[in-house]
Amino acid sequence: MYTHTQRLQYQASPDRSDPVYAAKLQELIGGQYGEITVMMQYLFQGWNCRLPGKYKDMLHDIGTEEIGHVEMLATMVARLMEGAPLDSPGHDEVSDPTVAAVIGGMDVQSAIVAGAGGRAVDSRGNLWNSGFITSSGNLMADFHSNANAEMQGRLQATRLYNMTDDPGVREMLAFLIARDHMHQNQWLAAIEQLKTDGIEDLPVPSAFPLERETAEVGYQFITFSDGEASTQGRWAGGAAPDGTGELSAVPGPHPVDGVPGPPLSDPRLFATTTPDLELPGSRVGADAETER
Amino acid sequence: MYTHTQRLQYQASPDRSDPVYAAKLQELIGGQYGEITVMMQYLFQGWNCRLPGKYKDMLHDIGTEEIGHVEMLATMVARLMEGAPLDSPGHDEVSDPTVAAVIGGMDVQSAIVAGAGGRAVDSRGNLWNSGFITSSGNLMADFHSNANAEMQGRLQATRLYNMTDDPGVREMLAFLIARDHMHQNQWLAAIEQLKTDGIEDLPVPSAFPLERETAEVGYQFITFSDGEASTQGRWAGGAAPDGTGELSAVPGPHPVDGVPGPPLSDPRLFATTTPDLELPGSRVGADAETER
Amino acid sequence: MYTHTQRLQYQASPDRSDPVYAAKLQELIGGQYGEITVMMQYLFQGWNCRLPGKYKDMLHDIGTEEIGHVEMLATMVARLMEGAPLDSPGHDEVSDPTVAAVIGGMDVQSAIVAGAGGRAVDSRGNLWNSGFITSSGNLMADFHSNANAEMQGRLQATRLYNMTDDPGVREMLAFLIARDHMHQNQWLAAIEQLKTDGIEDLPVPSAFPLERETAEVGYQFITFSDGEASTQGRWAGGAAPDGTGELSAVPGPHPVDGVPGPPLSDPRLFATTTPDLELPGSRVGADAETER
Amino acid sequence: MYTHTQRLQYQASPDRSDPVYAAKLQELIGGQYGEITVMMQYLFQGWNCRLPGKYKDMLHDIGTEEIGHVEMLATMVARLMEGAPLDSPGHDEVSDPTVAAVIGGMDVQSAIVAGAGGRAVDSRGNLWNSGFITSSGNLMADFHSNANAEMQGRLQATRLYNMTDDPGVREMLAFLIARDHMHQNQWLAAIEQLKTDGIEDLPVPSAFPLERETAEVGYQFITFSDGEASTQGRWAGGAAPDGTGELSAVPGPHPVDGVPGPPLSDPRLFATTTPDLELPGSRVGADAETER
Amino acid sequence: MYTHTQRLQYQASPDRSDPVYAAKLQELIGGQYGEITVMMQYLFQGWNCRLPGKYKDMLHDIGTEEIGHVEMLATMVARLMEGAPLDSPGHDEVSDPTVAAVIGGMDVQSAIVAGAGGRAVDSRGNLWNSGFITSSGNLMADFHSNANAEMQGRLQATRLYNMTDDPGVREMLAFLIARDHMHQNQWLAAIEQLKTDGIEDLPVPSAFPLERETAEVGYQFITFSDGEASTQGRWAGGAAPDGTGELSAVPGPHPVDGVPGPPLSDPRLFATTTPDLELPGSRVGADAETER
Amino acid sequence: MYTHTQRLQYQASPDRSDPVYAAKLQELIGGQYGEITVMMQYLFQGWNCRLPGKYKDMLHDIGTEEIGHVEMLATMVARLMEGAPLDSPGHDEVSDPTVAAVIGGMDVQSAIVAGAGGRAVDSRGNLWNSGFITSSGNLMADFHSNANAEMQGRLQATRLYNMTDDPGVREMLAFLIARDHMHQNQWLAAIEQLKTDGIEDLPVPSAFPLERETAEVGYQFITFSDGEASTQGRWAGGAAPDGTGELSAVPGPHPVDGVPGPPLSDPRLFATTTPDLELPGSRVGADAETER
Repeated sequence: MYTHTQRLQYQASPDRSDPVYAAKLQELIGGQYGEITVMMQYLFQGWNCRLPGKYKDMLHDIGTEEIGHVEMLATMVARLMEGAPLDSPGHDEVSDPTVAAVIGGMDVQSAIVAGAGGRAVDSRGNLWNSGFITSSGNLMADFHSNANAEMQGRLQATRLYNMTDDPGVREMLAFLIARDHMHQNQWLAAIEQLKTDGIEDLPVPSAFPLERETAEVGYQFITFSDGEASTQGRWAGGAAPDGTGELSAVPGPHPVDGVPGPPLSDPRLFATTTPDLELPGSRVGADAETER
Repeated sequence: MYTHTQRLQYQASPDRSDPVYAAKLQELIGGQYGEITVMMQYLFQGWNCRLPGKYKDMLHDIGTEEIGHVEMLATMVARLMEGAPLDSPGHDEVSDPTVAAVIGGMDVQSAIVAGAGGRAVDSRGNLWNSGFITSSGNLMADFHSNANAEMQGRLQATRLYNMTDDPGVREMLAFLIARDHMHQNQWLAAIEQLKTDGIEDLPVPSAFPLERETAEVGYQFITFSDGEASTQGRWAGGAAPDGTGELSAVPGPHPVDGVPGPPLSDPRLFATTTPDLELPGSRVGADAETER
Repeated sequence: MYTHTQRLQYQASPDRSDPVYAAKLQELIGGQYGEITVMMQYLFQGWNCRLPGKYKDMLHDIGTEEIGHVEMLATMVARLMEGAPLDSPGHDEVSDPTVAAVIGGMDVQSAIVAGAGGRAVDSRGNLWNSGFITSSGNLMADFHSNANAEMQGRLQATRLYNMTDDPGVREMLAFLIARDHMHQNQWLAAIEQLKTDGIEDLPVPSAFPLERETAEVGYQFITFSDGEASTQGRWAGGAAPDGTGELSAVPGPHPVDGVPGPPLSDPRLFATTTPDLELPGSRVGADAETER
Repeated sequence: MYTHTQRLQYQASPDRSDPVYAAKLQELIGGQYGEITVMMQYLFQGWNCRLPGKYKDMLHDIGTEEIGHVEMLATMVARLMEGAPLDSPGHDEVSDPTVAAVIGGMDVQSAIVAGAGGRAVDSRGNLWNSGFITSSGNLMADFHSNANAEMQGRLQATRLYNMTDDPGVREMLAFLIARDHMHQNQWLAAIEQLKTDGIEDLPVPSAFPLERETAEVGYQFITFSDGEASTQGRWAGGAAPDGTGELSAVPGPHPVDGVPGPPLSDPRLFATTTPDLELPGSRVGADAETER
Repeated sequence: MYTHTQRLQYQASPDRSDPVYAAKLQELIGGQYGEITVMMQYLFQGWNCRLPGKYKDMLHDIGTEEIGHVEMLATMVARLMEGAPLDSPGHDEVSDPTVAAVIGGMDVQSAIVAGAGGRAVDSRGNLWNSGFITSSGNLMADFHSNANAEMQGRLQATRLYNMTDDPGVREMLAFLIARDHMHQNQWLAAIEQLKTDGIEDLPVPSAFPLERETAEVGYQFITFSDGEASTQGRWAGGAAPDGTGELSAVPGPHPVDGVPGPPLSDPRLFATTTPDLELPGSRVGADAETER
Repeated sequence: MYTHTQRLQYQASPDRSDPVYAAKLQELIGGQYGEITVMMQYLFQGWNCRLPGKYKDMLHDIGTEEIGHVEMLATMVARLMEGAPLDSPGHDEVSDPTVAAVIGGMDVQSAIVAGAGGRAVDSRGNLWNSGFITSSGNLMADFHSNANAEMQGRLQATRLYNMTDDPGVREMLAFLIARDHMHQNQWLAAIEQLKTDGIEDLPVPSAFPLERETAEVGYQFITFSDGEASTQGRWAGGAAPDGTGELSAVPGPHPVDGVPGPPLSDPRLFATTTPDLELPGSRVGADAETER
């Protein structure tokens, strides 16, 4: 259960309005790696966590923090939208190139739909959707997903930092960039902790018996492109990062013999086929052609 | 530029048809972490890579391999769909519980739309979309994304391995699981290579000056939930994984003072507000209230 | 069954072209609350209505009217797009800020994809989708949805009215705004009619027995935020709008005792868990721990 | 800023597992009118609210409560998924019709993707997206949207109540149904409060001057279908609910004279047209044909 | 402008209910090639048509007919949903395999969300979206799109015809299949008419000067796969269907010389690159390396 | 299985950067009819093709070629993005209208998310999704879909050709336009080949017995709009293109007699209905009202 204080985790006041920048900043709210994504990702991981104790608690901590980050950004966007031009160049001659740039670059939908407020969309106006989040139940996989999310998020925040000189905006971004920095550390540390605790290891999932794999290709780097340099990387030789095998480079791809025959076709579905490929029954019989 | 051989990278023949399993296997084709996702992710990373040489070549290698994995899975799904029941329980009494399970669990849209072939959708029939892929231009961030994708992918493949006893299906999955294993190794090794080469380091992006961050929160684990255990983790103390700072635990969140005032409102947008909050102009002036 | 006359319900001629405004006007065609939404919402409510007579007839009336509103807007957009600049600032120096604003603010996809015609998208180019419509079968719920749709629609239309001075555009919008005004009245009147006819009442659905609810929280306003003022509203005291209970304010949230234990985990799914949380069987037994 | 307690607002324990019901219950988490929708809708309305005081505070209260409702439902779904069958009818003969029904009706993606946890999707597996939420800045419009959301939500919850006999599930639903009941009251009371406070009135937006509308159609119910009964409703006569005009019924639609001519076409876009409809320039000139 | 009669274009009454078939039939309402798609496609083509006369009139005719087809199907689906089982196999033992099949195969969301009515979704519950429609302004291209839509639609309808024996359902489908048959004829005839009238020809768009193309590859069939047979087709020799050139087969793909260098990178975006690839300025200068 | 050469099929180098044009060119990568669409469409048609030999081989050829077209475009977009302005008009006064146009018209998300690289989105930033592709299993239907895709694609490419004067961009487009020209020929020739080979004919699917259709409406053009001219087209008279029937024009639509009654309603779903419309049982009985 959650509670709220009206005070923010950090101030969110621009020195001046900037509707074009407001549109860009939406990426950090409703983009693929925006704060809604990490908020929802950590909340669902926390709710679904099957391991009581420090991992589940930690997921609750960070998921709850991220709700407040969305709040800070939505507050900032609404302030940056103040005074956005509503006029149309079809009627009103535009004499100032700065105004022209704002007319072209601002989020008109924010004005029409949201009264110039923050929205759950990205910098191009795409709707946020839950295909952006990951919650698999396997903590080793998910912590890597989380580390990636914080890296992409910090990367975008630093790009946005470079796109403005507004001291108020930069101050808030400096705070969020620092938190993304900490959260990168947090997930990488959590990966180490999982290994230290003997709970999960590489490869993910570590409980799947390695002998069930097709053994010979589990450590092979295979080339499929004519680039000459790729076999010179760390990934093509030496001890594997999973601590078990030895990496090797295998030039050229090696297809199996034989071209696969087409699947059989139920005539009631009117797929185009040849008469001698009729469906033999509801299941492939023992006497079906072996090359199929 | 790409070329194709009609031979597969590995065989893709089930021992018998199984339309319910075909629907499940679609997750590995068109799901969030299916083969279309990794194929498109690596192709775009390769095309956009600004670092000629072994990294770009390697991205081309693996991206090209993944196209063939989609091919193998699509071939398998079409064969598993052979003989799928087309009848309707509204008219045809079903006497066999196995048939009942198949009627309920198969992908009817595959029959109606695709003539019982493989499709670019997941196991619930959701369309694949490009919000599933990541290509940021920053290789350290993207390699973490790639490692996560291979972990989620292998996790799903092992779950699906446990959902069938079909030797042909298991043989193909054993191959794909081994490749996902290698690819986890590959991306983790590539992360090490980036550090060794001095190209990128943590935190991402490493070229952003740390002194621009809000320094005091870059290494703090802050609790936002009443769980007692979360400060006992590796993430709340000791040297930070980025190799620079020292992690610490900070109990309780600490909001800034003051409640943020509302953003100003343009009366032409008819947002509900009070008269004394009228918009002062197109930009916040020097004499605007400081607490805003 | 439907028929069509080529005459419009109202004129749709701008005085001059205005490609930037055309892009904005798309919100009224294909936006969340555009005319496609109300057209499809009322058509489906009409087709699904299980109450023959005046309600079903009325739904058919208004649903059919709305098809013609989409037609008017699509006609207007195509005319506003006339003469949209196709040149690129990469080659052609732009000397007129008005042209610069148009280049930045127009819908380039309309030109590339639709030959400068109206499209089933919103003002940011998002595709219309059927998640924007509601048709529940319960008329009391749906009429509130309809009232809201007309309010949001009129709100957006008045905002757009304020974004242009074009007499032709304003004349068409004045007509649509008046119809939205009528339709707000229509749905609010229909809500009254449902009550008068004794068909549906509040709370929705009124046929669900109130004694099945958790009685004590059905009329409580509970605070979850530290704002001081919220208990002073009409919603925190006095007779409830449903005509049955008495509203009250309850400060502070009150969680139930005990922290929920984690769900049990099937080891074949490789979720991270502890050994003593193995799955006991396909259903939770009578002797399972009671705190779970 | 938000904080979290690990205790739930209400218990969320089924008496037994039920994977088919778990799939259905997802509608209340990630559906169009699920708890994620109301949570995100109220949070954004609260953050964007430009009216400090009781309205903004109240939005923060209810938005924060709804986060905890998602938590309760996610907890319940994970428990209902316990022991879900993972086997495939392609290999394993199913002898029990109950098992057949579960195989067909459960959410296989929950197992494959989420380790049998709750997810941000609806009962058919569609991703939640932000097109489900409304935050316009106009409180009168938005409170009607909120009332509708609580009506649709309670309607769905009561339908789901009727789809199970599980005492634990019903107990949690009885709590949520009661809260939806309260929240219907809350928003209807808030609508009254807005009128009482003189802040907003009907029609929405009430600040738009009525004289700008096309006056004669603002109170007319017009028939577009041959249903005979629709003019007998409350919406076709009597005082309008907005308190200003008088409703009337106008039989038959009345198109304006003249068929609209086609929009002009830029030949560089290759739209099919006739030679005499060439584009006269970048803007429609004064001498353009008046009937266009 | 549109009007409606409550009588259907054709009867839509099943002989008995069949909820599983109702779910399948949704494909014809809200699927990629369902009736909503052709309705919206033809309506937008008609509204945007820049050629007054028989083509525009014909588009209005067929677009209006299709609205009534959605109506027929929505009516049918609601009737097929009558008596759908609402019980849950988690509590109620299922003894009848027919009931088990229905529980697994029906659209539970129709019951929960729509009160068992027709919906604007496909057979897997995916939302209809406007990415399914085409309206380019070029009639030759669009009429081919329309012919395809009618072919896919009739194909799906015949597949669904084969999935039921219900005389009432089959009667309605026989009507729709006949109309799809006519509409295939209609669009193919309209393509001929465009050529006869000298308005458009092949290739689309025929007004683009052929001499602007890279001449040598406009009639070449080039092989990119090791299949042996593809050069034996009509597409690899003989007069081209556009009536202008001569088709030929060109074995093997032929890449251009040289590997493309990477794009230059703005350091403020933190893309991973090498120091000597710094961005030279806002536009590529005359002295930029020629191989780039 | 696929392999890659780092050489492109054709050069992809602009003479100068042009970020606004880069955003437009994205339509050819990730739009509804972009190269990802045809690539994925042909790959899936090839994988699912049930007819071994020249058709399947040809699908593999063209599908593989299209992967390389995406590569060329992604390469071009990244180069056009070089030097895109990152500054914000909120702080930096813009004095050059050309720069203003670029600020408004470029894809800011490309910079923020992709480090200024090509992306799998269209010209408005919409995500590519698999609802853009068609693979039905019926080659006659799918080849018409393919012909349409190449027509729409060439149409968009010629429009984009007209939107730039950059020699390098035009050279690449001239190549792609020529390939689209060939591919139009290819699919139209393949349609002829299917007829010549006696594999498929019109109407699609040709194997469905014509006598099962409602015979009288299979060749009727019926008017639903008051346009006068539509019966003068080729589609309203003469031999049908399917080679079987004779087309005719039938003025005015002809609904069937009787208004359909409402579907019955399960009271547990709380749909609004009248008491005498209670549900008679799980299936419509023999004594149900005949007019229903």
